[in-house]
Amino acid sequence: MTRILGGSDLAAAIRNDASVAAAALTEIGIRPKLAVVLATADESTAWYVRSIAGAARRTGIECDIVDFGPEATTEEIHAVLVELGHDPDVHGIILQTPLPDGTDLDLLREAINPGKDIDGTNPVSLGRLIAHLPAFAPATAQAVLALLDHHGIDLRGKTATVVGRSTVVGTPVAHLLVQRDATVTVCHRHTADLVAGTRSADIVVVAVGIPRLITAEHISDGAVVIDVGTTATDDGLLLGDVDADSVDGRAGALTPVPGGVGPVTTALLLNHTVDAASTQSAVRRAASLVGLQSSR
Amino acid sequence: MTRILGGSDLAAAIRNDASVAAAALTEIGIRPKLAVVLATADESTAWYVRSIAGAARRTGIECDIVDFGPEATTEEIHAVLVELGHDPDVHGIILQTPLPDGTDLDLLREAINPGKDIDGTNPVSLGRLIAHLPAFAPATAQAVLALLDHHGIDLRGKTATVVGRSTVVGTPVAHLLVQRDATVTVCHRHTADLVAGTRSADIVVVAVGIPRLITAEHISDGAVVIDVGTTATDDGLLLGDVDADSVDGRAGALTPVPGGVGPVTTALLLNHTVDAASTQSAVRRAASLVGLQSSR
Repeated sequence: MTRILGGSDLAAAIRNDASVAAAALTEIGIRPKLAVVLATADESTAWYVRSIAGAARRTGIECDIVDFGPEATTEEIHAVLVELGHDPDVHGIILQTPLPDGTDLDLLREAINPGKDIDGTNPVSLGRLIAHLPAFAPATAQAVLALLDHHGIDLRGKTATVVGRSTVVGTPVAHLLVQRDATVTVCHRHTADLVAGTRSADIVVVAVGIPRLITAEHISDGAVVIDVGTTATDDGLLLGDVDADSVDGRAGALTPVPGGVGPVTTALLLNHTVDAASTQSAVRRAASLVGLQSSR
Repeated sequence: MTRILGGSDLAAAIRNDASVAAAALTEIGIRPKLAVVLATADESTAWYVRSIAGAARRTGIECDIVDFGPEATTEEIHAVLVELGHDPDVHGIILQTPLPDGTDLDLLREAINPGKDIDGTNPVSLGRLIAHLPAFAPATAQAVLALLDHHGIDLRGKTATVVGRSTVVGTPVAHLLVQRDATVTVCHRHTADLVAGTRSADIVVVAVGIPRLITAEHISDGAVVIDVGTTATDDGLLLGDVDADSVDGRAGALTPVPGGVGPVTTALLLNHTVDAASTQSAVRRAASLVGLQSSR
């Protein structure tokens, strides 16, 4: 009875678009390139970065992994981010977390060139997004909206509750939902009555990283539930924040974990990289035209 | 029965702090200075700007009004904003709206030096605020929180509904409330059931500019109501978004219009200017010390 809102078809369609655009750019001499900056010994993070790199290459996007290892300092990472920001051959930059203890994440986020900030990590991107200016949204947040659109779920005038207020997911998702005319409630660890906060919502988005936090009691009949949680278990499973067995039959629709938001997020990162390459090359062409005219 | 949450005492206390800090800065040769950029024939805006200038001068803050008149172009205003951003004698910049039809407000907002952006107008300030980095909040949004704190209203775990989603008030107020651990709902023109959205809230903040939109039916018994609305009537009155007569006896507390959020907002703009002057002079001293050492 609960409809499963899978992300694989949508992800494939987005990757296909990105692949066509990447080929067209390569044809005119611009090879889209993504750089992922990494500084951790965490194996699941390394696995995730390799999967992005593989997907990028299959899409016709070059991908450099700059792996500092777990002993990296803020200064080293900062220097590379600045260098990548200036490198005309690099179009997209991902600063992968977690970073080593003691590194200054705030300083590093602000060192990402906003035009290449394809995962919306620099606070400038967040501010521009909220001010309705062109900017890359954090890919996970955008993936939530893309999935809702793909599955034909209308947002205007609907009530939506976002559980979680992180800068990378909960906060930008809430904004994107408000911008799409939903009435949005943000719940978090200090919410006194989580059931009351979620139970009245037409759409519930959960992004807290607590496996199976959300059960049938949190969901109204027929609600659409988007599960952003991915907690890795020791035996290699990924657990969502929603107890799928519990909400089955109650929820009207649910995204699976894995296979829901995740693949769409990765596809959007590729799509953003191609967009960034396209914009940067257009800006450079415009600048050279202006240069041409002023030198006449 | 409904407690009136006036802003005058708090505003006076903030102005007093600003005045002491301005005197201390002036003593060491730094005269805090605010520049207000204006380009309208609207008389109530001109009046508001003159009232800020007067309050600034009484606080020991120099205030320049750069009045372009209603025929100004984006280029003219942009050039002055950039110049003010570089002027070491100017510490705070306000870009007053409304601007002439056809000017590019987005471009102009981004031209405000973030270190001098004392009304949180540049999207960079908004992004930094949301990312928990130091930044000036839009003064009206901060005034809402300052009033709640001043009157001893606890926020953690409380439900708060913000009516209005503007970049200058509704959106930053909602963020500040979430950061203070309230469970926050954002309602707006597309909200299907405004009564349901406001009636369940412990705290209701209204910032839409529709006189007397909020009546007793929107408010739960004992709720705290913050009225940010100020609509000027032809006969010189200011009307709030809340029907004070209607909610009287139902609401636990209500801010008056005028005399509630307004004076606190103006006081915070002065306070931000002094803060900006203090930070900029500290940065300059640090830079000159570094210069001194490196020249040894």
